[in-house]
Amino acid sequence: MERPRHQGMAKNTFMRWRLPLVCLVWEVAMIILFGVFVRFSPEADAHWEEEKRKMNLTSDIENDFYFRYPSFQDVHVMIFVGFGFLMMFLKRYGFGAVGFNFLLAAFGIQWALLMQGWFHSFKSGKILIGVENLINADFCVGSVCIAFGAILGKTSPIQLLVMTLFQVTLFAVNEYILLNLLHVKDAGGSMTIHTFGAYFGLTVTRILYRPNLEQSKDKQGSVYHSDLFAMIGTLYLWMYWPSFNSAISEHGDAQHRAAINTYCSLAACVLTTMAFSSMLQKKGKLDMVHIQNATLAGGVAVGTSAEMMLTPYGSLIVGFICGIVSTVGYVYLTPFLESRLHIQDTCGIHNLHAMPGLIGGIVGAITAAAATEDVYGKEGFIKAFDFTGAYKRRTPSIQGGFQAAGIVVSVLMAFAGGALVGAILKLPVWGDPAAENCFEDDVYWEVPEDEESDVYHMHNPDKPASP
Amino acid sequence: MERPRHQGMAKNTFMRWRLPLVCLVWEVAMIILFGVFVRFSPEADAHWEEEKRKMNLTSDIENDFYFRYPSFQDVHVMIFVGFGFLMMFLKRYGFGAVGFNFLLAAFGIQWALLMQGWFHSFKSGKILIGVENLINADFCVGSVCIAFGAILGKTSPIQLLVMTLFQVTLFAVNEYILLNLLHVKDAGGSMTIHTFGAYFGLTVTRILYRPNLEQSKDKQGSVYHSDLFAMIGTLYLWMYWPSFNSAISEHGDAQHRAAINTYCSLAACVLTTMAFSSMLQKKGKLDMVHIQNATLAGGVAVGTSAEMMLTPYGSLIVGFICGIVSTVGYVYLTPFLESRLHIQDTCGIHNLHAMPGLIGGIVGAITAAAATEDVYGKEGFIKAFDFTGAYKRRTPSIQGGFQAAGIVVSVLMAFAGGALVGAILKLPVWGDPAAENCFEDDVYWEVPEDEESDVYHMHNPDKPASP
Amino acid sequence: MERPRHQGMAKNTFMRWRLPLVCLVWEVAMIILFGVFVRFSPEADAHWEEEKRKMNLTSDIENDFYFRYPSFQDVHVMIFVGFGFLMMFLKRYGFGAVGFNFLLAAFGIQWALLMQGWFHSFKSGKILIGVENLINADFCVGSVCIAFGAILGKTSPIQLLVMTLFQVTLFAVNEYILLNLLHVKDAGGSMTIHTFGAYFGLTVTRILYRPNLEQSKDKQGSVYHSDLFAMIGTLYLWMYWPSFNSAISEHGDAQHRAAINTYCSLAACVLTTMAFSSMLQKKGKLDMVHIQNATLAGGVAVGTSAEMMLTPYGSLIVGFICGIVSTVGYVYLTPFLESRLHIQDTCGIHNLHAMPGLIGGIVGAITAAAATEDVYGKEGFIKAFDFTGAYKRRTPSIQGGFQAAGIVVSVLMAFAGGALVGAILKLPVWGDPAAENCFEDDVYWEVPEDEESDVYHMHNPDKPASP
Repeated sequence: MERPRHQGMAKNTFMRWRLPLVCLVWEVAMIILFGVFVRFSPEADAHWEEEKRKMNLTSDIENDFYFRYPSFQDVHVMIFVGFGFLMMFLKRYGFGAVGFNFLLAAFGIQWALLMQGWFHSFKSGKILIGVENLINADFCVGSVCIAFGAILGKTSPIQLLVMTLFQVTLFAVNEYILLNLLHVKDAGGSMTIHTFGAYFGLTVTRILYRPNLEQSKDKQGSVYHSDLFAMIGTLYLWMYWPSFNSAISEHGDAQHRAAINTYCSLAACVLTTMAFSSMLQKKGKLDMVHIQNATLAGGVAVGTSAEMMLTPYGSLIVGFICGIVSTVGYVYLTPFLESRLHIQDTCGIHNLHAMPGLIGGIVGAITAAAATEDVYGKEGFIKAFDFTGAYKRRTPSIQGGFQAAGIVVSVLMAFAGGALVGAILKLPVWGDPAAENCFEDDVYWEVPEDEESDVYHMHNPDKPASP
Repeated sequence: MERPRHQGMAKNTFMRWRLPLVCLVWEVAMIILFGVFVRFSPEADAHWEEEKRKMNLTSDIENDFYFRYPSFQDVHVMIFVGFGFLMMFLKRYGFGAVGFNFLLAAFGIQWALLMQGWFHSFKSGKILIGVENLINADFCVGSVCIAFGAILGKTSPIQLLVMTLFQVTLFAVNEYILLNLLHVKDAGGSMTIHTFGAYFGLTVTRILYRPNLEQSKDKQGSVYHSDLFAMIGTLYLWMYWPSFNSAISEHGDAQHRAAINTYCSLAACVLTTMAFSSMLQKKGKLDMVHIQNATLAGGVAVGTSAEMMLTPYGSLIVGFICGIVSTVGYVYLTPFLESRLHIQDTCGIHNLHAMPGLIGGIVGAITAAAATEDVYGKEGFIKAFDFTGAYKRRTPSIQGGFQAAGIVVSVLMAFAGGALVGAILKLPVWGDPAAENCFEDDVYWEVPEDEESDVYHMHNPDKPASP
Repeated sequence: MERPRHQGMAKNTFMRWRLPLVCLVWEVAMIILFGVFVRFSPEADAHWEEEKRKMNLTSDIENDFYFRYPSFQDVHVMIFVGFGFLMMFLKRYGFGAVGFNFLLAAFGIQWALLMQGWFHSFKSGKILIGVENLINADFCVGSVCIAFGAILGKTSPIQLLVMTLFQVTLFAVNEYILLNLLHVKDAGGSMTIHTFGAYFGLTVTRILYRPNLEQSKDKQGSVYHSDLFAMIGTLYLWMYWPSFNSAISEHGDAQHRAAINTYCSLAACVLTTMAFSSMLQKKGKLDMVHIQNATLAGGVAVGTSAEMMLTPYGSLIVGFICGIVSTVGYVYLTPFLESRLHIQDTCGIHNLHAMPGLIGGIVGAITAAAATEDVYGKEGFIKAFDFTGAYKRRTPSIQGGFQAAGIVVSVLMAFAGGALVGAILKLPVWGDPAAENCFEDDVYWEVPEDEESDVYHMHNPDKPASP
């Protein structure tokens, strides 16, 4: 039953000792670091009754848990079901898509709790975590899931874990530079999550360039059912994106506004995606690749500005543009990137995350620069941009400049980090698959026998059907 | 590879310029109208701090966002995943089911925000939107998704967009008549959403009657996997229906009560659906069509009364009856409607939405008429039916009469509107498919090659398998 | 088209009158009992305005609905989509998995509202229900879904309804003993739900032992797509488990903490499951059975202690251990239980619920015994363990002892109850399938024609393909 391997036979994809070793050692490290550093925030600690008195709160409903937990769960679904199922479009990589996404995200959130905790929730030697930390950890891992999209089907689980370790670290550093040093607003992560994650992943896949990938070309497409599974991912990302962009905004109007802006942007984006998907195809038929991906670009592109006074029509305009940009990207840019720049981008994250992320950063900079006390109200203006303390004298136009700087920093960090990590992943010790075994679950997964031998083998006439 | 087309070849289903034109022009119109009219409600506006003082609120948690956002997200899932996947039962129309539902809903919510906004949230020349508007827009689109069920597989995406435009408009008018002029209660939309949407869709499909539909009969059924996908839709509709019926109820007890009543009604409905599904089949086997649909009738039928003091056992009775009515409808009424009245109802919305919607309206009228100060308490009585201002002197029995009038108005509006829209959709310019290409994704979608040529073609022995 | 039946022909699986009779009579009984007993709790009753004044609440947001409804909906998804889809891994039992789970859960929640209501919400002759009762009813039914996992594919729907009736009853009794008599804490149900449910189901399947089950062995496996469907179940269980364990905890810090602890435990569990899944397989490939199930063991195992001050690193340790225990169980223990003890455990609930449930009980006992006023704060200590009234003088170590007693009681109740119910289910009147028809939807469901005849029959070469 062993399938014949050609030049790829040289590749050792045997995971039996390497994968367990990495998983177990790293998890033990997590336990030790959590033991030393991580404790509950006052709102999750049993001393809460005392805290309530201290903060002069009259009701348990004031606990941050009730402000953010529903949004947290929506974000959680986006990371695990949204990304996991969106990547299931490949005909023979469903286990890998959802399973490896599960693995890297489960590791990543732990490491993110630590990394982000050291930067943002560190008090008297301890990281104090609450629901907002869980959301931020999920956000951080979201950027890894994005990068995973570029290398989907071409890497071993160990490579993914290594990438996660480094990317989470760099994400936390980049986020710290943006949010704390540049005092940039980016609640929905157009810059920190999407721009950074996408250019990071694109750089990695460029460095891992496989010249012989056409050997597994027959497996790079979808089948009818895999496209339907992928739509589960698409819809959950689309529906819950308002929660994503509002999850860590300020209580009250900011969360409310962020959800509305995102809802509007996403709605517009669907219309222009459908329009251009049909228009750019000779027969005028709609392409599931576009529907699955470009419809989401509107959510990416208001990530920075959704909590600002972007206004509903502003959101529609952003969504309108991004549906077009993203769909055009899938049709013209992805083939160009692959053939000319040798960037093999399995899921087309350049179209869904990189370009819309850049647009999101720019829209955020413009929206911030255009802010006035008239539109926000005196208090609202200060609250929206946190123009307090050291930033008391910052003006909207200066803020806009810093926002723009945030885009540049994110892109540079992504290029540098991606180059470093790509180089590490190129080492011949991680058990990546041979070119002709890419996009194939069989390499790392036990695949059910009979399905493999019947339905699947029909597409592989060179493989004898099992008796 | 082009499949031979018989008389249907005459039909021009080429979408390349028509669909993009409609999508882009309409979206530009949305942007302009939003630009002129739509702004944030005070609870989503950056002036919220001032508003809070004005309304004497002490905490951000009093923002309506926290009362309604979790329910909004559940409703959102029902519209996009619930309806989208429920309609995926057809063996070769999965892309169309989920994709066209996505398209029409994304357009519909924008137009609904405007239409409903002009009627209900218009202040000093602006529509002020908050989370409740988003829920209402989703509700309005829900009625379009229902009507879509009747014509599923037989229309072009442009026809669906045209229908959405008109149906949302008429929905808003009907809703205004019921809620504002008749002062009717209908928080879960038994009348405004289900009765109206279903009779609208049934009228449209009657007018679009296709005498030769048996030419695509082989594609009108399900396959094993398409039934499982459809169950995703069923379950999300079923689980989140308590959120649907409670989403726009008054804060506090009304939301709480609506959720409980709906939960009970739905539970009872499952039992009677299973009972009658088995009983009405010669071999006593359960039919997935019933499980996928009739189990939901209990949610439809408490749409009006769930926020009233229907009581848990009252809800069980309603669910009990509706499971039976709906299942019997699938077995006996749907074939009758098709053969005698020429109403081709792809999803059987007559059984899931029309009849249970009527029952829901009637139950609501009875429950309102039977209300007493004893049961509701003096304050609760006034609050539940909003017997204030001009309606201060309305009695329960008069309210019951108005509720009943609301049913009649909804049905008449649906017939008239459906006839109008059906006539428009009959124009030969919208690119609808030929009879033998109905229920077939291939007409409007790029369908993956190999799947089509292998697994699918096995069921079409007249079509040569590709090499 | 009738398929030939061998010795199994003797089995009468005809459901036409039996299933409807049971469903209808029982549902009528529910209506009568609800009519006599069930009313709304003050927070869901129209008298809420008066109640608010009485309780001195200033805002509707203090209604328990807003504290618990989002978690309720997550739990609801776990019961219906989580369990329903997790059990869909069998290649030809998808309808039965999701459909029978739907049926038994819909009945079970009604009966649980009554049983648990009599024990816990009974006031002046009425059961007063609110959102917490809905959650508890879902919890109770969760234990039935667990037991269903052991007998999946081998029972008729009537048997499942009979089991549900008895198991819910015994669950309520056991829960009353633990929570009220022993004053044990078990918010996430490690003991009441998982330990009890699993040992109950294992006892039932032991008594229903089928010596000839290898006759349907070819249907006991999965196919590629059924594994992907099952992952939907897995992920929703995994993602929403923090809601499960925190849903009925005290308002404020306890809910917050329970969610964080569960999040951590589940994350760690994924890593060790992946590690051992690869390690225990000769070729080092990952096994979907482990990923689908063992990754969830971490949620089960912090069910008792999640609301306590288990701490994030404590949670990681528990998850770490349970991923290993559960995966090892699937590899070594399940075959042993089947061959030696004649326990045929279709879903391996011994590995996912029984062992992790026991561990959860033990971890809870230890965490309780180790509690100090220092860690919890004076008030927090009393609040966390409800050391008030008759329990004012209970110490942590005594509490730990009672917690341990709770484990023993749950196991004994499960054995006794499972033996009783197993004996009842063995009566030859319930229409269970013959050994060669186990794990086959065709027995109780209308299965789509063409799918059955083509794709499926390919795997059954002995069965002639239909023309």
